[in-house]
Amino acid sequence: MIFDEYSIKTLIRPVPDFPKPGIIFRDITPLYRSPRAMRMVADSLIQRYVESPITHIGAIDARGFLLGAVLAYELNKPLVLFRKPGKLPCDTLCESYETEYGEAQVEVHRDALKAGDQVLLLDDLIATGGTLLAAARLIKQLGAEIYEAAAIIDLPDLGGSRKMQNADIPTFTLCAFEADE
Amino acid sequence: MIFDEYSIKTLIRPVPDFPKPGIIFRDITPLYRSPRAMRMVADSLIQRYVESPITHIGAIDARGFLLGAVLAYELNKPLVLFRKPGKLPCDTLCESYETEYGEAQVEVHRDALKAGDQVLLLDDLIATGGTLLAAARLIKQLGAEIYEAAAIIDLPDLGGSRKMQNADIPTFTLCAFEADE
Repeated sequence: MIFDEYSIKTLIRPVPDFPKPGIIFRDITPLYRSPRAMRMVADSLIQRYVESPITHIGAIDARGFLLGAVLAYELNKPLVLFRKPGKLPCDTLCESYETEYGEAQVEVHRDALKAGDQVLLLDDLIATGGTLLAAARLIKQLGAEIYEAAAIIDLPDLGGSRKMQNADIPTFTLCAFEADE
Repeated sequence: MIFDEYSIKTLIRPVPDFPKPGIIFRDITPLYRSPRAMRMVADSLIQRYVESPITHIGAIDARGFLLGAVLAYELNKPLVLFRKPGKLPCDTLCESYETEYGEAQVEVHRDALKAGDQVLLLDDLIATGGTLLAAARLIKQLGAEIYEAAAIIDLPDLGGSRKMQNADIPTFTLCAFEADE
């Protein structure tokens, strides 16, 4: 079995009241400290996309860089960075979005994508979906398409994956946590 | 030839006066958009460390996550995240340092490393060396050792790699840019 959901979920640590009271933070650092778990997660995604028509990997700053880089390397695809504001030095497009904790922005270099590109977007977790939805708007503004948005964890109670489906963005996650889990 | 320094350097874009006047920012996004260049860089590092005694990969937030994750995956080593303040939810150690642009901090989870661990630290670039030196102090505080600090780019004029050598931290970079390059 390449993917053992139970093993993976036990390596994602729930941290109550971080960064704000009432929020359960899902800490993936134990997962990345396990070479076996990292292989399970990365290899599952590599197998899913190895024969797909994706042309680019889009990785969300910062934890999306982890799997994004592994997939770009393994699938030999260009890696496009979606970054927090002020980090990309050349001509950028920017989109704002609401997070669980306030407002934020995501940027991409204008020369990073073009019409016809098929982007696999990667992050570690789908919560409210704000970052991924904003990155998806940037991709569309550059004329490219989103092949799929993928993450390790879905938090369905926060509604992000539903919003993404409503926005016609195909979405894939490897596991989900309910609010009381 | 696994590594072609000229090809790599042409994919690192100099951006004058970013983020402040007088600073030449070295933009690695074109390198990551080239699957061939990414393989050259990653494979060079993989070959360098594949038979080394490293036990852990330490990756610096955020761009160090890119190569850090690829190396952890390829070498089957635990990946430890060194993050900007407020990002790690559990019990952390924190170190401050000076950057080209002001003061900053880096954190690591206390349970991420222990005595006897041999850490390969990865970032994309060595400028003043502040982040890597601070991460090195965190590693030592946890009782672990730094096997080597590696990056794609050295900016020797900014003195970071010299400071790291003076601090007895073995340092490896794939290319260097002089101030006028």
